[in-house]
Amino acid sequence: MKATIITIGDEILIGQIVDTNSAFIAKSLDKIGVEVNEMISITDDKNHILDTFTKLQNNVDLVLITGGLGPTKDDVTKKTFCDYFEDELIVDQKVLEHVTELIEGIFKRPINQMNKDQALVPSKCTILHNAVGTAPGMWMKKENTVYVSLPGVPYEMKYLVENEIIPKVVREYERPYILHKTVLTHGQGESLVAERIEDWENNLPEFIKLAYLPAPGRVRLRLSARGKDKGFLERALEEYLASLDAIINDIIVGYEEANTIEVVLGELFTKQQKTIATAESCTGGSIASLLSSVPGSSAYFRGSVVSYATDVKIDLLNIPPELITEFSVVSAEVASAMALSVKKLMKTDYAIATTGNAGPSKGDSNAEIGAVFIAVATPNGVFVEEFNFGQPREKVIDRALYKSLEMLYKEILKKQL
Amino acid sequence: MKATIITIGDEILIGQIVDTNSAFIAKSLDKIGVEVNEMISITDDKNHILDTFTKLQNNVDLVLITGGLGPTKDDVTKKTFCDYFEDELIVDQKVLEHVTELIEGIFKRPINQMNKDQALVPSKCTILHNAVGTAPGMWMKKENTVYVSLPGVPYEMKYLVENEIIPKVVREYERPYILHKTVLTHGQGESLVAERIEDWENNLPEFIKLAYLPAPGRVRLRLSARGKDKGFLERALEEYLASLDAIINDIIVGYEEANTIEVVLGELFTKQQKTIATAESCTGGSIASLLSSVPGSSAYFRGSVVSYATDVKIDLLNIPPELITEFSVVSAEVASAMALSVKKLMKTDYAIATTGNAGPSKGDSNAEIGAVFIAVATPNGVFVEEFNFGQPREKVIDRALYKSLEMLYKEILKKQL
Repeated sequence: MKATIITIGDEILIGQIVDTNSAFIAKSLDKIGVEVNEMISITDDKNHILDTFTKLQNNVDLVLITGGLGPTKDDVTKKTFCDYFEDELIVDQKVLEHVTELIEGIFKRPINQMNKDQALVPSKCTILHNAVGTAPGMWMKKENTVYVSLPGVPYEMKYLVENEIIPKVVREYERPYILHKTVLTHGQGESLVAERIEDWENNLPEFIKLAYLPAPGRVRLRLSARGKDKGFLERALEEYLASLDAIINDIIVGYEEANTIEVVLGELFTKQQKTIATAESCTGGSIASLLSSVPGSSAYFRGSVVSYATDVKIDLLNIPPELITEFSVVSAEVASAMALSVKKLMKTDYAIATTGNAGPSKGDSNAEIGAVFIAVATPNGVFVEEFNFGQPREKVIDRALYKSLEMLYKEILKKQL
Repeated sequence: MKATIITIGDEILIGQIVDTNSAFIAKSLDKIGVEVNEMISITDDKNHILDTFTKLQNNVDLVLITGGLGPTKDDVTKKTFCDYFEDELIVDQKVLEHVTELIEGIFKRPINQMNKDQALVPSKCTILHNAVGTAPGMWMKKENTVYVSLPGVPYEMKYLVENEIIPKVVREYERPYILHKTVLTHGQGESLVAERIEDWENNLPEFIKLAYLPAPGRVRLRLSARGKDKGFLERALEEYLASLDAIINDIIVGYEEANTIEVVLGELFTKQQKTIATAESCTGGSIASLLSSVPGSSAYFRGSVVSYATDVKIDLLNIPPELITEFSVVSAEVASAMALSVKKLMKTDYAIATTGNAGPSKGDSNAEIGAVFIAVATPNGVFVEEFNFGQPREKVIDRALYKSLEMLYKEILKKQL
């Protein structure tokens, strides 16, 4: 089963916003074995939309469209949808009741005509109930292709995908299995990793595909297996992963199924009933922010001191001024002291600390631009590593963020062995 | 001048990563008057790439392609590029020298064959020098369409767009002006705003386009003017903005050109030589992270105490336990006390504090899921507002983040009037 995702909206095409909807939809479809072969972002223009619909007709099974369902004049999707299916808009009584309840009952506002128009839908469409917003989803079929229109507001789109579309596709269509397994490696570049596993890669069977996902300082290797026999695919993946592990065991730091490193760490902390805090300088709270983005993180994430200014390090983290004078604020000594201090202050089992110079100009120290020290405090002590993440600023912050979680992760795993 | 952006990579189509490259490229092109009419994400498959190239041939002036230029086997873009132009790969000596210098000189690793292959380029292409990576950009023209291939690693792509592509397009092509002005409103829904400005909207001239960009709790209105006479466009935009302001002055909180709220705030702080700190519970450091993402933020952002656990609020922020017992940890009183405390601890002019329950389950308080108190401390005191941001968790955190910056922004602006 093949799908195409369309995003409608000029704000995407002028780069004012990043389209995150398509990735969410793609991931949801991938999990149930629906292959997304293309994502397209187009303008709010009626002819452009019609044109795109026509090109996809009978070439894919499913077209998911987000955006352009709001009540305002620039939203043309619904009318265009009607044109394409040679249909007309009618008021759906159930949707109207839901919209009225939302606006008058929950938001306590008088309902206006534009709100009411949200209940206008093509007469032949199957309505997908949007419990969290006023614009319903609309499911329509023409010949061999189903077109589904969804609102562009991310949490409304997500609600409809999770509660309406995925269950409906699972009920009504047969699909193969698509299994992914991602291997996290660190410390070697893409080309070096590729060289080491060249023979192994050449021996992969047709139904397993390998992809390299490089990021500064780390490479993820994704194996995707596709077929009708789930058990067979699982066994094959396991076998090839074992032979891969035998070759590059020294750089593998873990495996990822659907989960990101912050979720994986969260599961480890929860299972082991351990806690964590951070003391952040150059990362500015981004480690805390990522850790606390995980539902349930309040069970193990206790907090952070973001000590951006040097005297905040002294006053709040009790870093001795002499230490800063002697070694500079960007140093292994200060990073270690920060980690140990926040661990003590917040009474945690683990702590991460960062101090560095993200650039573009030099700060309170003479440290090179891009230089970062990361310290990890554990129940048994503290260790620190020095890096130079180069430039630009966003890369330095991003690399320090992920490197610190990786250091912590490896440390916890080591303790488990 | 029309452009299409293509992103190549299975990792995008299975939703493993969000494509942020396209938005960056689109924004850069929009600034110089190049209209992006479509963004397409396609698989690593050779025929899929060739097909997409063929469809665009002579329909757009410029095709920018990212991804698929790495040294590994799954990267087919370069070979496909060659096929499409009926060209062959040759070693470019200058690129080879640059790759060697990067690998051996900077990374201190022996160069391998895959590294060397990065210097293979189609013989007829114009090479765009990639100072920050090993894969060069490649610029090739066929009939009326230019195709440019760029690496997918974001900072390499950005380097090439900023330093090579934009200057080259500006030198070689005539383009109209596209000017945008975005009005930030808050507190009223999209349909209510649309109703209030209906007459004004109907009177907009052909060359000015209006778009509604709704987000929970706020609507941005984007005016885009397009034409050859920059002065005329600027005057027209100014005039229509003035008449818009006369209608909805009560909900306009500011204007945005290219800048986001954290950058606008940063400029205000820098200009006024004021400082800021945050005390964050439910936002988990995301306010600190956003504030410190701005280059130069160390001049005004001093730090944050992320007090996720209740006793961290007591121990580090000196919140009296009685206050928490009496009013609960999620309360206006605790939020105000957190803001005042961090302002004092970090010796700043302003402070933001958040405490709330982001869900999905209840935490250390009996506060409703979605309930958030945001306090802003200023040189003159502290004020606090209560919100319920509903669910899911990510929406609560995101809305609390932006609402807090908006409260701060309005407060600073008020003081300026």
